[in-house]
Amino acid sequence: MRSNYNRVLAAAQKLVDVVLVSPRNPLNIGAVARAMANFGFDRLSVVAPYAPHWREARSAVGAPELLTSAQEFATLSEAVAASTLVVGTGSLTHRKAEQRVLALPSLGPVVGEELARGGRVTLVLGPEKHGLTREDLSWCHVLVEIPTDARQPSMNLGQAAAVCLYELASRVFAHQLADGAVLELQPPGAAASGDLDLLAGVIEETMEQAGYSPQAMQSANRHDLRLLLRRLAPGRRDVRRMLGLFRRILWRLKAPGALK
Amino acid sequence: MRSNYNRVLAAAQKLVDVVLVSPRNPLNIGAVARAMANFGFDRLSVVAPYAPHWREARSAVGAPELLTSAQEFATLSEAVAASTLVVGTGSLTHRKAEQRVLALPSLGPVVGEELARGGRVTLVLGPEKHGLTREDLSWCHVLVEIPTDARQPSMNLGQAAAVCLYELASRVFAHQLADGAVLELQPPGAAASGDLDLLAGVIEETMEQAGYSPQAMQSANRHDLRLLLRRLAPGRRDVRRMLGLFRRILWRLKAPGALK
Repeated sequence: MRSNYNRVLAAAQKLVDVVLVSPRNPLNIGAVARAMANFGFDRLSVVAPYAPHWREARSAVGAPELLTSAQEFATLSEAVAASTLVVGTGSLTHRKAEQRVLALPSLGPVVGEELARGGRVTLVLGPEKHGLTREDLSWCHVLVEIPTDARQPSMNLGQAAAVCLYELASRVFAHQLADGAVLELQPPGAAASGDLDLLAGVIEETMEQAGYSPQAMQSANRHDLRLLLRRLAPGRRDVRRMLGLFRRILWRLKAPGALK
Repeated sequence: MRSNYNRVLAAAQKLVDVVLVSPRNPLNIGAVARAMANFGFDRLSVVAPYAPHWREARSAVGAPELLTSAQEFATLSEAVAASTLVVGTGSLTHRKAEQRVLALPSLGPVVGEELARGGRVTLVLGPEKHGLTREDLSWCHVLVEIPTDARQPSMNLGQAAAVCLYELASRVFAHQLADGAVLELQPPGAAASGDLDLLAGVIEETMEQAGYSPQAMQSANRHDLRLLLRRLAPGRRDVRRMLGLFRRILWRLKAPGALK
């Protein structure tokens, strides 16, 4: 099931490019590439990089293959030429948007529809210091904003990339997987009602044997215990273990001579 | 609207802690703190950090205040003692989960419900090299997995933190805001981690007193019991009752003369 999830993910993600505009810090470039690899994206382009830092990032030990094979462009216009939906990233703290703005959690359906229509999508990330310029943004169909705290709105480039790619990978593509994509493991086999009753009986007997509560409380305790076991919903193995423990306790309580 | 969003976010996020277990790289520690600041979380604890690197991270230029004011603990057990839902992070590449596993995109409702019930939630992040150990995970009610590509499943610590906190900030808290329903806190239900440890101690003593299992099994039993209690997630009243029962049993086992 898991491997199927990954297979479908990989196919769909070939339709999404990432473009880095004039990145400076080689560590950040590496971090963006790593996040892409983590979430199954492998088409990276870079626009007008600062040459020494770009070389350094690409030649770093352990650089993912998508980084060494990244395409280089002189302008953003060229980098996004084949794209039908260009998504700019950034914050609106210091400017007014000139195009449609989406909060990142709302991006999924827009990208999903575009891909379903046969389009190509590009996510554009700006340089560390000031982000994408107004000029850069003019190539974007949509501006996506990561909802951050007003006191610390500006994200690290590698972390911003990770968050955007996670959102796309887990929401756009997961949604294309329909019902085969549930990653959640089923809880271990739930115990049947009769098994819970059996356990309740042994616990009750233990309570009685230990003088846990006055006679008058026994009926209320039985009721509460039944509800409690159903609320806790132990699995079959849990019930076997608890049975074992309470039977052992009972045996000891009934045969005090056997105590050490 | 935006500022209202941030205000409510800030209030709710006081109920979520982040715990870093034995982080090594000061840059990663700083990156986790920055992601917390970006998404409005400010309660950070660290368990058994490597002292020089921890000092370096805290004294770095521009370290957020939440990092300089972070709490330090010797053990994970202490760090999560007040928490009612402990969420471990990690990948299942090399092991089998012993507790409920959720894909990150499904975490929101679980955390949201816990907070709505008046609980406290802790997100636990492991060390860079190998992640959380089996022992660490035994304090976790739930293991959350970031759905990553099978060819590159392992994420950078700072990026993993950013992705998890983004998911919580944008899905849990945004969803609470839907119709203005601002976290109506109900009387606390779920037992805190420290209370579960207390109960586990009394049950263990009972097991021993009843001769439940050979000496050689005690450590494995302790581990399993810890996991079991977190999976069953008893409420505070449940824990008080179970404590009462096991203390009564213990008293009887230790004083056989008192038996009828």
